[in-house]
Amino acid sequence: MTVYEHRGEAIVVDAGMAFPRDEHLGVDLILPDYSYLIGRGKPVRAVILTHGHEDHVGGLPYLLREIEVEEVWATRLTLGFVKSKLDEHGLSRATTLREAEPDKGPVDIGPFKVDFVRVAHSIPDAIAVVIETSAGRIVYTGDYKMDHTPVDGIRTDVGRLAELGNLGVDLMLGDSTNAERPGTTPSERRVGEAFRQIVPLRDGRVLVACFASNIHRIQQAIDVAIETGRSVAVIGRSMRKNVNIARNLGYLDVPDEILLKPEELSQLPPYEQMILCTGSQGEPLSALTRIAFHDHAKVKIERGDTVIISAKPIPGNELRVHDAINGLAKAGAEVLHEEIAEVHASGHACAEELRTMLALLRPKTLMPVHGEFRMQAAHARLGLEAGIPEESILIAENGAVIELTPNGASIVDEVETGVTLVDGLGVGDVADVALRDRRHMAEDGVLIVVVTLTSSNGDVVVSPELVARGFGEQDALLDEVKSEVVEIIEDLLADKISEIKLLQEHLHDGIGRLVYDRTRRRPMILPVVLEV
Amino acid sequence: MTVYEHRGEAIVVDAGMAFPRDEHLGVDLILPDYSYLIGRGKPVRAVILTHGHEDHVGGLPYLLREIEVEEVWATRLTLGFVKSKLDEHGLSRATTLREAEPDKGPVDIGPFKVDFVRVAHSIPDAIAVVIETSAGRIVYTGDYKMDHTPVDGIRTDVGRLAELGNLGVDLMLGDSTNAERPGTTPSERRVGEAFRQIVPLRDGRVLVACFASNIHRIQQAIDVAIETGRSVAVIGRSMRKNVNIARNLGYLDVPDEILLKPEELSQLPPYEQMILCTGSQGEPLSALTRIAFHDHAKVKIERGDTVIISAKPIPGNELRVHDAINGLAKAGAEVLHEEIAEVHASGHACAEELRTMLALLRPKTLMPVHGEFRMQAAHARLGLEAGIPEESILIAENGAVIELTPNGASIVDEVETGVTLVDGLGVGDVADVALRDRRHMAEDGVLIVVVTLTSSNGDVVVSPELVARGFGEQDALLDEVKSEVVEIIEDLLADKISEIKLLQEHLHDGIGRLVYDRTRRRPMILPVVLEV
Repeated sequence: MTVYEHRGEAIVVDAGMAFPRDEHLGVDLILPDYSYLIGRGKPVRAVILTHGHEDHVGGLPYLLREIEVEEVWATRLTLGFVKSKLDEHGLSRATTLREAEPDKGPVDIGPFKVDFVRVAHSIPDAIAVVIETSAGRIVYTGDYKMDHTPVDGIRTDVGRLAELGNLGVDLMLGDSTNAERPGTTPSERRVGEAFRQIVPLRDGRVLVACFASNIHRIQQAIDVAIETGRSVAVIGRSMRKNVNIARNLGYLDVPDEILLKPEELSQLPPYEQMILCTGSQGEPLSALTRIAFHDHAKVKIERGDTVIISAKPIPGNELRVHDAINGLAKAGAEVLHEEIAEVHASGHACAEELRTMLALLRPKTLMPVHGEFRMQAAHARLGLEAGIPEESILIAENGAVIELTPNGASIVDEVETGVTLVDGLGVGDVADVALRDRRHMAEDGVLIVVVTLTSSNGDVVVSPELVARGFGEQDALLDEVKSEVVEIIEDLLADKISEIKLLQEHLHDGIGRLVYDRTRRRPMILPVVLEV
Repeated sequence: MTVYEHRGEAIVVDAGMAFPRDEHLGVDLILPDYSYLIGRGKPVRAVILTHGHEDHVGGLPYLLREIEVEEVWATRLTLGFVKSKLDEHGLSRATTLREAEPDKGPVDIGPFKVDFVRVAHSIPDAIAVVIETSAGRIVYTGDYKMDHTPVDGIRTDVGRLAELGNLGVDLMLGDSTNAERPGTTPSERRVGEAFRQIVPLRDGRVLVACFASNIHRIQQAIDVAIETGRSVAVIGRSMRKNVNIARNLGYLDVPDEILLKPEELSQLPPYEQMILCTGSQGEPLSALTRIAFHDHAKVKIERGDTVIISAKPIPGNELRVHDAINGLAKAGAEVLHEEIAEVHASGHACAEELRTMLALLRPKTLMPVHGEFRMQAAHARLGLEAGIPEESILIAENGAVIELTPNGASIVDEVETGVTLVDGLGVGDVADVALRDRRHMAEDGVLIVVVTLTSSNGDVVVSPELVARGFGEQDALLDEVKSEVVEIIEDLLADKISEIKLLQEHLHDGIGRLVYDRTRRRPMILPVVLEV
């Protein structure tokens, strides 16, 4: 998500979200911190979305809840996905949706002149964005690859990009995802060729798992199904939804009679069945994962079936995908995946394509974006090699403020930023300390020490109760802990220390030491002292 | 770990351990369940170790604590590693160490005739094991690749393997790790060639991270350091230990004057420095990870440094390696890793090499081992293609009992087996339920509800105390929970329900529902009811 400001007005390009990593225990999704935009205290003129992937549009409903946005601009398919998303969030009236039309020339949005350039990516209808103001011309490539033979024939518009380069680009923000990878990303069409080599040879069922938004890949799989006399069932909520949207908008060409319900499909002989499904990342509740672990009501893998996992695991998902492949193999399927067959092509440009883009745009200033630091650094090296002086390459952290003037661009300031964690219904209420607690308990469990102090004839009776969870509870140790609790409290009381907080602190430290000494583990110790 | 029994005597081949995955929260390492061996009630004649990797020798100290083992057989370097390990565990007198000498012919171990065949792997001195009894001839390949130009010149002994094939192999247990990968694993020498291309071009420091046991790779890195006028510091406990052992035993050839302490090395200009370090898997406390996150006392990355990560992430470690690369790039280093440069070669045979092995041994029965099911299944397919009938290919789960007679081999029984989790000082005392509890708390935190019931003039006073951890603690919600606690208890008491267990159950369910309703989260609810 990038904010552009000019003459007091703001537009935003993309409004993405991130998926939590394992260390974000229990967090559902991650948003950028919108404080800066909220602090502006006036509406945003427009949000421009470059394509329909979640890391570019997934934050939109949350942004719209926080900030007034006059217009959302996107191409037709992206708008289709966004509409469905806003409906689900009850936000269909929160803003005005406007169609971005790459071939119709620039539009004026407040003081910005904005144009759209078609690029090829792993979802149809992706665009680069050109923003012109009196300060200069900015090109944000969006996510792209230089696919010269895309499935829909809509290429990255190198002619238009060259024209922009000739006019002069003052600042280029470029996708860096694959900057570390040498060479060129294969055309999406290559995946279709792989399907054509694989599917005709199989006499069992064929399952193809890919991202639900990869409409071109879905088209290619269905095309091969038709050519080989197979009917198709689409399984998985997001894929069914996207196939519907894409068919309605004309982005997916599928004859009605090819699409069957899973229960209809299973009436056919195996060699007439193809199943398209979600779960290419091994997501826990996805169709493919359920199928792999015999937990899907309608699909059971049988010996002779072939599963094509047409995706590459996103870093962090490797083990889940690995487990799914293992489960499918145990059930008797042959599993083809990107490590052993050409069944996937990236949506992002590799180094040679980035060089081409740099040659086309010849920007005065390059700002590598989209990708971890290591990828941005690799993109920066490509920029240097392309002749951009080192001082004109900006690697900006989140929150950096870049000023563009007719004299050039530079980092001039920083605004407070960060991430907002969404957990259950709460947005932003998972504090760091809660995550740290969860990690602690996850590592070593928890031992709760409840002590009641009862006065009886002037003497205080100390009764401990222990509750242990996630921590090997040996009776002998728990008995020892109980005695230690009584001893700690009685010693403190004898020393005239009776403040609850202090008693709890001493219990925490004393019991923690004892347990560590006996077990070399550090469960979270939670003392609760009650006076009755 | 495989147990072979004949005429009432047992030998064991390999005694490995596994590393925990993220889902094994807080577990330190994973051992096989030794119950079957313990239940035999008599000593094991010998443990034979094929090479010094942890997944083949790491369980030995734990095994020796449980079972009497008369002899441990291994080659000289493996023995060197094992000796050091047993010393650390205070087990240096627990068994007799015997040197396996591949070129000296078979040895008799009880009723078994055992022979050793040299194989190339990513650690020197690896062997395959041949076991002969009156029931037939068994060949276990160990971990191997067909490296025909290994760094130490000690090739996989294809001549001897062919001889065994000509004599007749009744049962082959074959490494399946890379069975899914087509083609041939590159020679280890290729990695040295990559070092030779990379290092001379750099004028900053060069760091090389690899497995501490990959002595050949360490040798190649040091050779290139010498050729390019660099001195070397070795950083990381396990790598220093292994370099020492390997030098003492003559497996590593390093002139004394090349090896410096890190603080001495840092006196030299950057282009005369090479650092060998651990951490190629992004392990949290390893040298490279500390260096990447500015947490190493003696090494600070500077702009112009080059880091070579000479390893491939083991499934599950990708994100850690990814983070380390990112940290190193942020610090200014150029990072070369196996995805973008040829700085790693696997230690395991790919499909074409497995075909070669099958052609050399021509086993009557093939049992794919070492590798997940999916890899064993791929190995089985290669066996089928090599002409082994389907009924003579055994994919055996852990615990399977295979009977070998002169008429063939088959799965005849199953013994109870499983894994033993080691956590802190405790071996095997982390129950599944503890892990499940940890996972639950890790996802959603914990809410402890302590209720004291005090009698006062016949009335019962209900006082709730709440402790929340790892769970967004909003005061309003906690107040609501308190009221609900009092209401639940008072209702139950009014209905004459006062058994503590029942009160706790109702609290658990009622409070769980309330919290889920308000937050869509399911913290672990731990009710403690105390009567005073």
